[in-house]
Amino acid sequence: MPTVYIIRKARFNAAHRLHNPEKSDEWNKNTFGKCNNPNWHGHNFTLEVTVEGEPSPETGFVIDLSALKAIIEEKVLAKCDHANLNLDVDFMQGIMPSTENFAVAIWKQLENALPAGRLHRIRLQETDHNIVEYYGD
Amino acid sequence: MPTVYIIRKARFNAAHRLHNPEKSDEWNKNTFGKCNNPNWHGHNFTLEVTVEGEPSPETGFVIDLSALKAIIEEKVLAKCDHANLNLDVDFMQGIMPSTENFAVAIWKQLENALPAGRLHRIRLQETDHNIVEYYGD
Amino acid sequence: MPTVYIIRKARFNAAHRLHNPEKSDEWNKNTFGKCNNPNWHGHNFTLEVTVEGEPSPETGFVIDLSALKAIIEEKVLAKCDHANLNLDVDFMQGIMPSTENFAVAIWKQLENALPAGRLHRIRLQETDHNIVEYYGD
Amino acid sequence: MPTVYIIRKARFNAAHRLHNPEKSDEWNKNTFGKCNNPNWHGHNFTLEVTVEGEPSPETGFVIDLSALKAIIEEKVLAKCDHANLNLDVDFMQGIMPSTENFAVAIWKQLENALPAGRLHRIRLQETDHNIVEYYGD
Amino acid sequence: MPTVYIIRKARFNAAHRLHNPEKSDEWNKNTFGKCNNPNWHGHNFTLEVTVEGEPSPETGFVIDLSALKAIIEEKVLAKCDHANLNLDVDFMQGIMPSTENFAVAIWKQLENALPAGRLHRIRLQETDHNIVEYYGD
Amino acid sequence: MPTVYIIRKARFNAAHRLHNPEKSDEWNKNTFGKCNNPNWHGHNFTLEVTVEGEPSPETGFVIDLSALKAIIEEKVLAKCDHANLNLDVDFMQGIMPSTENFAVAIWKQLENALPAGRLHRIRLQETDHNIVEYYGD
Repeated sequence: MPTVYIIRKARFNAAHRLHNPEKSDEWNKNTFGKCNNPNWHGHNFTLEVTVEGEPSPETGFVIDLSALKAIIEEKVLAKCDHANLNLDVDFMQGIMPSTENFAVAIWKQLENALPAGRLHRIRLQETDHNIVEYYGD
Repeated sequence: MPTVYIIRKARFNAAHRLHNPEKSDEWNKNTFGKCNNPNWHGHNFTLEVTVEGEPSPETGFVIDLSALKAIIEEKVLAKCDHANLNLDVDFMQGIMPSTENFAVAIWKQLENALPAGRLHRIRLQETDHNIVEYYGD
Repeated sequence: MPTVYIIRKARFNAAHRLHNPEKSDEWNKNTFGKCNNPNWHGHNFTLEVTVEGEPSPETGFVIDLSALKAIIEEKVLAKCDHANLNLDVDFMQGIMPSTENFAVAIWKQLENALPAGRLHRIRLQETDHNIVEYYGD
Repeated sequence: MPTVYIIRKARFNAAHRLHNPEKSDEWNKNTFGKCNNPNWHGHNFTLEVTVEGEPSPETGFVIDLSALKAIIEEKVLAKCDHANLNLDVDFMQGIMPSTENFAVAIWKQLENALPAGRLHRIRLQETDHNIVEYYGD
Repeated sequence: MPTVYIIRKARFNAAHRLHNPEKSDEWNKNTFGKCNNPNWHGHNFTLEVTVEGEPSPETGFVIDLSALKAIIEEKVLAKCDHANLNLDVDFMQGIMPSTENFAVAIWKQLENALPAGRLHRIRLQETDHNIVEYYGD
Repeated sequence: MPTVYIIRKARFNAAHRLHNPEKSDEWNKNTFGKCNNPNWHGHNFTLEVTVEGEPSPETGFVIDLSALKAIIEEKVLAKCDHANLNLDVDFMQGIMPSTENFAVAIWKQLENALPAGRLHRIRLQETDHNIVEYYGD
């Protein structure tokens, strides 16, 4: 049976700030530049979730996309859309909200909501020029 | 010699319907929702075909893109463009036309038209939010 | 007070067929080519609805986008998404479903659901290469 | 001599909050929904500035795009990029930062930096689905 | 009868150089910067041709898109694709190949190939950030 | 520690010509078609550079994107933007400027500017339909 990868795309908008509280203000300013703005800034994030598996003989589906969409909405969008990643999102507490760390945290949110070994990739686009991919290890 | 992957993109428009004739109408309606509409619906499909290989010392090409374009047109577009996947496309007969199964079927169409081991990936975008990738196994 | 134009984008997928029943099959085949396929074909349509007006002093909105989104969903998407334009869509009965005629028909659907004189433009993209705009006259 | 319209596109990322301080919290919550989040949210804004004019016989340019780019950077991006529209941007103080009002405010910023009558349109995209256009009256 | 605008998009790739032979090398270098490179540079141009008219009662078409596509290919793409705008393109001889002048020249090429008064707009995208529009006057 | 892949996108415009000087003009014309035009043609190239690594505990970054952007600008854009790949670019001398060879050459430019083993992928888009990927072996 063939293994097929299916990608579901979702969009959400959030604010964040890059700031390491264990470091000085000067270090933070030098390291993060404009991303350290204490008044926050924000992005339109585009999230792509890839699930792998064999298409079902009955449906032709690797996964029911309505179910996958509902999982993404519950685990990610309901928490992150129109939210502040530093202040509002439970699964980002104590985590520097770089795109890298955010993608890893989204993986952890989705991994347990899917059958074991089925989540293949998180792709997270922060701006037109910056994208992150994470494969779970 | 380096191994390079070259991607050729093509677009076509087709109608289809998700329906399993071995199941009841109720099962089909519950499983496929609007995709089960007996009057069909359709999509602008975007197909990306990836071929791998070493660039030729004489041309710098992994594959002549005019030749690859002609293969895609003969094997996929001539059969699928402005067609009904369920009714018109020979290589989809008896196959549930989910994006997953359609991508696998396109792989089989193209695999034998290319030198052995050269087809690397089929990527098939059905909507702005749904994409499938298949690597041949 | 400034007049501002706000555009709301929506996507839907539909099947259709270009066929003039008052003409011969040969005329239809010659005129519409592959678009005359009796087994239908389909598209991912992208609809852009532009509403004009002065931003409200209280909200800064020309129109509440949640309300506009709901109108587009009720008047267009609920009828056209995953549907057959020729067979399923009430407001397209007896109308050749060219992109041009479809855009004019969508204008008529939306015009009366909005305050008089506020609908400015319908932009309807059928494929990556074909787009139609209609301004109501 | 022909009149040609030239469009320069720029991108920036900002946080904002829709909140009318003259209204109750309940009114704000009902009116703005998630956009009223007191912890802010944000967007990748895409700004398109259109300048009209006759191409210069010497250069073929309606306007030197390097000069236009510098004006956009000084008047808009230096103030808005990685900023909080409500708190950080001088020309948005006391203005509800809806996309509509923001586009009008950007027009005012750019109008005086260009020769009279040359600014034609501000197009401001806030999300994949919401876009605003303003022509200065 | 409604007036509808239909847009056909086409892509081509070309080289060019901005250089005014009546001016000094220093003036050209200062005015055009990198675009003055004597060894040329190039772009993927995206051309959008808008034709206006009333949809035909028989076909629903403002214009047969196959015919419009053929006109664009004959008048523009056959001359400009994989060409040097300064050296190879007959209708650009003696014209500074700025995007502005190029759009006006394309208008003149297409205007006479279409019924009088039907060509509405030329939109020509040179880069991701620079676009020109011309309406014929 | 997780391994994350971060992608930085950059754009540049260049001219080139496909021509093998060891072959006859007829061979070149037959092999490369319009790409063999002696007067050159050009493209808007989109380059995506992927760097892999573990996010820093202090910054959350796999790599400082400002540093990566500066490396791409120094090693690729400063040499290739608004340039002729055959004539102007030092690292392309004696190399057929196919997209395949160009991607491999860009890998070599960037590999030594980054810590060992960190460069993961070069993705180079030449046109809307042609893309190349290279992983360094």
